[in-house]
Amino acid sequence: MAEELILLDDWLSMFGMRARIALAEKEIKYEYREEDLSNKSQLLLQMNPIHKKIPVLIHNGKPICESIIIVEYLDELCKDKVSFLPSDPYQRAQARFWADFVNKKVGDVGGRIWSMKREGIEVAKKELVESLKELEKELGDKPYFGGETFGFVDIALVPFYTWFYTYEELGNFKVEAECPKIIAWAKRCNQRESVSKSLADEKEVYEFVASYRKSLHLDD
Amino acid sequence: MAEELILLDDWLSMFGMRARIALAEKEIKYEYREEDLSNKSQLLLQMNPIHKKIPVLIHNGKPICESIIIVEYLDELCKDKVSFLPSDPYQRAQARFWADFVNKKVGDVGGRIWSMKREGIEVAKKELVESLKELEKELGDKPYFGGETFGFVDIALVPFYTWFYTYEELGNFKVEAECPKIIAWAKRCNQRESVSKSLADEKEVYEFVASYRKSLHLDD
Repeated sequence: MAEELILLDDWLSMFGMRARIALAEKEIKYEYREEDLSNKSQLLLQMNPIHKKIPVLIHNGKPICESIIIVEYLDELCKDKVSFLPSDPYQRAQARFWADFVNKKVGDVGGRIWSMKREGIEVAKKELVESLKELEKELGDKPYFGGETFGFVDIALVPFYTWFYTYEELGNFKVEAECPKIIAWAKRCNQRESVSKSLADEKEVYEFVASYRKSLHLDD
Repeated sequence: MAEELILLDDWLSMFGMRARIALAEKEIKYEYREEDLSNKSQLLLQMNPIHKKIPVLIHNGKPICESIIIVEYLDELCKDKVSFLPSDPYQRAQARFWADFVNKKVGDVGGRIWSMKREGIEVAKKELVESLKELEKELGDKPYFGGETFGFVDIALVPFYTWFYTYEELGNFKVEAECPKIIAWAKRCNQRESVSKSLADEKEVYEFVASYRKSLHLDD
């Protein structure tokens, strides 16, 4: 495509990583712009005045906001590449249901756990493990959530894999001990270049979180 | 369609009303089953084991859950009727963004306000009016959110119109005084039989809420 695409993002955002994976899967070239979320750019405020959040994909000057909507937009835009969503309406509805589940359950807890006090972390950890167990049940013995091919729900969930190490360190548990199939699935996804190149380094995420927690005395 | 469609619903649910409007717009015959949410049916628990919520559309024995996903499913299933979503990928992304906004902002507050204590209602009312003002800005001078034809965002938002009277009585304000264009738009939507036949009666909703609040002594 000879078009202008800019992604406003933050390196450790699991929501931003979804957009990066989708762009890589569709082999779309784009300009990556790192946002300083403590000092948001005028462009971000102008392109997402409602939520003021990353990621925002700017396509020829027009914004697309909300990570799942960006993934679906890219899927509809580039139909010549492999599809994220299946073609059958019922299977599409199921994929949307589980991506929504990831947002509501994993995303909600996962997005709060790192800035919680110790007492909160114990509760959040339980919720997180319960949600991952539901996802493990849905995955079953399939290689990917949609079946044989990497798709919509995989893109929605796999960025959290980068954060598991941080959750484990904070919550003193191992995701693999609770949900071994989810870890096997995440490793399978991470063999794709689109995923491995889009995910942040788990140790760097943890170091960032540890220093953030220290600055707010969350572990005192 | 010579197929079996069952809608598990609750008469006053704004989320259920979305499914009813979409079914009516697509002229699909279905069996309506009222759920008693204080004593959920085995069928509901079996068809939506994750959220245990209505609405659930059961199509030939298979469930579709979450109201927005049901609306999109029906749109993809019945392509011979007028589409809820536009065909252009960017316009589709915008429609999804605003339907998501309705869920996150109007749905969140609107779904809690009726069971709140007085102090909470004042805060919730402000949030609700702010969100409706954002929607009014997005609507602009168009007859419907998508432009000339009734569509996705209209279906997502118009069921809340049924609840405005209840919000107004609880919060002692008038939506029309704050957002006149939203009321004009809602009345326009309500001229469609698909909408007027799917929405509950605003006075009956209020009576239900008033008696619920009385039983819990929320206004004492």
